[in-house]
Amino acid sequence: MIEGVKQQKWWGWGEEGKGYRYEDKPKFPAFVKKMVGVDITAPAETIPPFSSLNVPASQLTDELRGTLAGILGDTYVQTDDETRVVHGFGKGLRDLMRVRAGQLERIPDVVLYPGSQREVEQVVDACVEADAVVIPFGGGSNIVAALEAEPGETRQVVSVNLGRMNKVLEIDENSGLAHIQAGVFGPDMEDQLRAKGWTMGHHPDSFVWSTLGGWIATRSSGMQSDKYGDIADICRGLTMVMPGQVLELRPLPSTSSGPSVREMVLGSEGRLGIITSAWVNVHRIPEVRELQAYFYPTYEDGLRACQQIVESDAHVMMARVSDAIETQYIMANGKKSKSKVSSLVSKGIQKLMVQKGWDLEQIAMSFVGFEGSASHVRYEKGIVGKIVRDNGGMGVGKGPGALYDQKKYDTPYIRDFMLDRGMLCDVSETTTPWAYAEQIHTNTVERFNKLMDELGVQGVVFCHLSHSYHSGACQYFTFAINDNSANAMRTYDLAKREIQQSFMDNHATVSHHHGVGEEHSPWMEQDISPAGVFIQRKLFEGVDPGNNLNPGKIIHDGKPGITSNSPDA
Amino acid sequence: MIEGVKQQKWWGWGEEGKGYRYEDKPKFPAFVKKMVGVDITAPAETIPPFSSLNVPASQLTDELRGTLAGILGDTYVQTDDETRVVHGFGKGLRDLMRVRAGQLERIPDVVLYPGSQREVEQVVDACVEADAVVIPFGGGSNIVAALEAEPGETRQVVSVNLGRMNKVLEIDENSGLAHIQAGVFGPDMEDQLRAKGWTMGHHPDSFVWSTLGGWIATRSSGMQSDKYGDIADICRGLTMVMPGQVLELRPLPSTSSGPSVREMVLGSEGRLGIITSAWVNVHRIPEVRELQAYFYPTYEDGLRACQQIVESDAHVMMARVSDAIETQYIMANGKKSKSKVSSLVSKGIQKLMVQKGWDLEQIAMSFVGFEGSASHVRYEKGIVGKIVRDNGGMGVGKGPGALYDQKKYDTPYIRDFMLDRGMLCDVSETTTPWAYAEQIHTNTVERFNKLMDELGVQGVVFCHLSHSYHSGACQYFTFAINDNSANAMRTYDLAKREIQQSFMDNHATVSHHHGVGEEHSPWMEQDISPAGVFIQRKLFEGVDPGNNLNPGKIIHDGKPGITSNSPDA
Repeated sequence: MIEGVKQQKWWGWGEEGKGYRYEDKPKFPAFVKKMVGVDITAPAETIPPFSSLNVPASQLTDELRGTLAGILGDTYVQTDDETRVVHGFGKGLRDLMRVRAGQLERIPDVVLYPGSQREVEQVVDACVEADAVVIPFGGGSNIVAALEAEPGETRQVVSVNLGRMNKVLEIDENSGLAHIQAGVFGPDMEDQLRAKGWTMGHHPDSFVWSTLGGWIATRSSGMQSDKYGDIADICRGLTMVMPGQVLELRPLPSTSSGPSVREMVLGSEGRLGIITSAWVNVHRIPEVRELQAYFYPTYEDGLRACQQIVESDAHVMMARVSDAIETQYIMANGKKSKSKVSSLVSKGIQKLMVQKGWDLEQIAMSFVGFEGSASHVRYEKGIVGKIVRDNGGMGVGKGPGALYDQKKYDTPYIRDFMLDRGMLCDVSETTTPWAYAEQIHTNTVERFNKLMDELGVQGVVFCHLSHSYHSGACQYFTFAINDNSANAMRTYDLAKREIQQSFMDNHATVSHHHGVGEEHSPWMEQDISPAGVFIQRKLFEGVDPGNNLNPGKIIHDGKPGITSNSPDA
Repeated sequence: MIEGVKQQKWWGWGEEGKGYRYEDKPKFPAFVKKMVGVDITAPAETIPPFSSLNVPASQLTDELRGTLAGILGDTYVQTDDETRVVHGFGKGLRDLMRVRAGQLERIPDVVLYPGSQREVEQVVDACVEADAVVIPFGGGSNIVAALEAEPGETRQVVSVNLGRMNKVLEIDENSGLAHIQAGVFGPDMEDQLRAKGWTMGHHPDSFVWSTLGGWIATRSSGMQSDKYGDIADICRGLTMVMPGQVLELRPLPSTSSGPSVREMVLGSEGRLGIITSAWVNVHRIPEVRELQAYFYPTYEDGLRACQQIVESDAHVMMARVSDAIETQYIMANGKKSKSKVSSLVSKGIQKLMVQKGWDLEQIAMSFVGFEGSASHVRYEKGIVGKIVRDNGGMGVGKGPGALYDQKKYDTPYIRDFMLDRGMLCDVSETTTPWAYAEQIHTNTVERFNKLMDELGVQGVVFCHLSHSYHSGACQYFTFAINDNSANAMRTYDLAKREIQQSFMDNHATVSHHHGVGEEHSPWMEQDISPAGVFIQRKLFEGVDPGNNLNPGKIIHDGKPGITSNSPDA
């Protein structure tokens, strides 16, 4: 561990000592028991000690080590086992299952911590000169296997951790732009900006454990992107170190300078170089920020309302709606507390819903976020309130939203808790045009449930709409499967594959904001057509003829790295 | 000419018989006389007959002609002189000067009019097989030399006119998406959409003489893009024919499927293939549409107000402001008429301005567009009205906006009128962050004026802010130079070069929405850095190893085509 650079647990999400607790959520055990048949109050599996892992020795040559230490100093050239293991994986379910099982495969031979752009340049050049593989590393929260070397990689593997490059360098107050180093984590960055009265407004689920560079490299999206834009909108310029040269894109609000190089770097997942800093849109902290909760009789009502909201004269900061099962999950996950605020749906409101003829098993919970001047928030709430009523919904006030705000970054800890208890939990998200929004939900849930029946295991999938655009929306699926058997990885593979293929069969994309990595690459030809893959391949080959820059990500060179995508092969 | 496919004049903008008239604009002759010293009431130069041109013979081989005719039929394989000349140029000032002077250089050997995507595929494959150069052609309004072959091109040159592919194929009413063939002209497309209650909302200055495919290929922007987005936002999916394969990008509201292939096609100017259709965002026609006019004491006040408008809770459809000289130009260009509406600034208002202590030589005119429900337009006008007042401005109502709306596509005709009278008129537009918005205006105007002094010619440059973004704005410069001498082309080259270099020296880009072509390519390394050009080059080389697809555009392969950019070379 390097001082000042946060590092996640080797076996799970986030920091040591922090985890999910069910003890203060009285309804949660029964919910899990009902949905997947697991008693979460029973004793859990314990994590083996790190020392029990059989960690492959570093293959770093003395020569390359000497060169790298000459550039960075010994402290910033780490080859200890735990650092290498942590940098060998992201935090996908497959990653967690493998690392816990001691399946370490091809972890990095060395982890570097450059402290400046110049050092990154020297490091990249030295690694390419030595024909090593270079993999940039931010927060380590990637869930599509973008951080690991290919299984059969015979060259030296170098992970470059940007964590020391964590400063807001400059705020251009006239333009609402900030120049920020790529290795800064979400909370640290927002703290630095807030100290001067600014915010970037980018809040992905992974916010606490992800970095600006990682967001750009994967085309991230945040909870407030309906207002602030996805990272592709926010990032107006950037610097990327490439072998022997540095790409400098100055901040521009818009440009027609040919095929967008900026948009080639966005989502490039390390295949074109290492992003070292970016110019991003920043905004004055709004006068008012408010999350309002609403309920609809059904998810379909909520989807329709969200479309009407995005098309309306209101410009909300967020509009989410959960399907029936996710609504039950949220309600079951509520804390028992003396404070009134924690009661997501009071008995009185439930009674009102029944009186309206709603089926409480079908109700859909929604959060809508408003920001701006007090009068503007009032104006927008008026517009949204009418749309909610037009779609048969009702408002329940600010209480649930305040709760949501407090817990919004904690979901990944639940996954570890569930995995400790033999449950496989993961997520897949996608976008479709609005015309297919209902269909993709229905079909994906059906296909998942059918697969569970076929496999003879108990599983559950639920979903929320997370982002709305003029022409369509992102829907975010979460699934949990009760499988503690030796077949667990195959079960997971089949489930993940079924969901991704459902996306392809229902006019959707491989991912809205998690990226491709190796996990989603088998569907790229279906998504962007073989000619689209051809174009990406030519770009990667042209820029990186030696295949040194995070090879195998996004598109493979005829050798898919992860066996998962062909469980029957 | 092919039935149903509009074709512009060979010597100027737009349709035969239509042109600019000064006779009903009593103040215009005095304005031009004052600004550049030309008497526009004197007899003008006449255009030589087409027959006087020395048109190079077509170099189409019988073999390729036979193949192409076999695919398209003889009618759609045109080799007559006028068709080839019209397709050999865009409508940049350099194009008009050269074609009028009979400098035809390397015009196409054949012009094709495919009627279907399948025919485009066959044509592209046949041309690449014959090692010919393929140049896609839409409305022919390009002003950055993206439509002509390189001067020394020894291979056969084939221009592919998409004009027969002009249908709105499908409207997905649920999603607000339309699937439209690339060759449709602006007015025809909007007519087809409006017949079903929809609009795309994309209105570039070239609207009447440009096509959907051309907008995508050049990253076009329109007058209402502050609301509807630039074409990069509007275009959600597309089909592009490449040698031996077809790129199919399905419509998606957003995706994180690696480096964006969609964003590589946007702005590709024919270097990756021929765009044959696209899925675009379409919108219901708004209940209210209103253009309000405002005046500010100075351009700087107007710039500041536009920034505050884009940052405000209003989401306007358009916010423009003209600098002092452009304001005088607009006022001088007003029609004499009995109708009150045509009086841009009444005597009463002028008196009020003087009473406020404004210098009438410095006032800046602004148009702001509002759309939506009647109540929403009222709400937004309230917000904007306050910002205008805060910046010392005043509103003058809807009259001038109505006039603007009627004449908004006519500006290019003035350029022909001026050229007939020995004046060189052209435009350059760019974006900067807001911090440099004043500086780029001041410095560009100063450098232009200094150059005019050095050259000993009379010229004028003026400017308006045309698009606002969170972090910056587009400013659009128009210049006119009185030079009818044998040096005219060199004068123009120097002026254009001075303006573009001022952009580079003041944190701006080569172009906000006109693209690169050959005209702007010399500044690409300064704009996106040498590494950015390297990335684009690798993309082009990888996709088109034979250099058959519109070679020489955006970046050159060491042989700039147009001498203009090195007038001293």
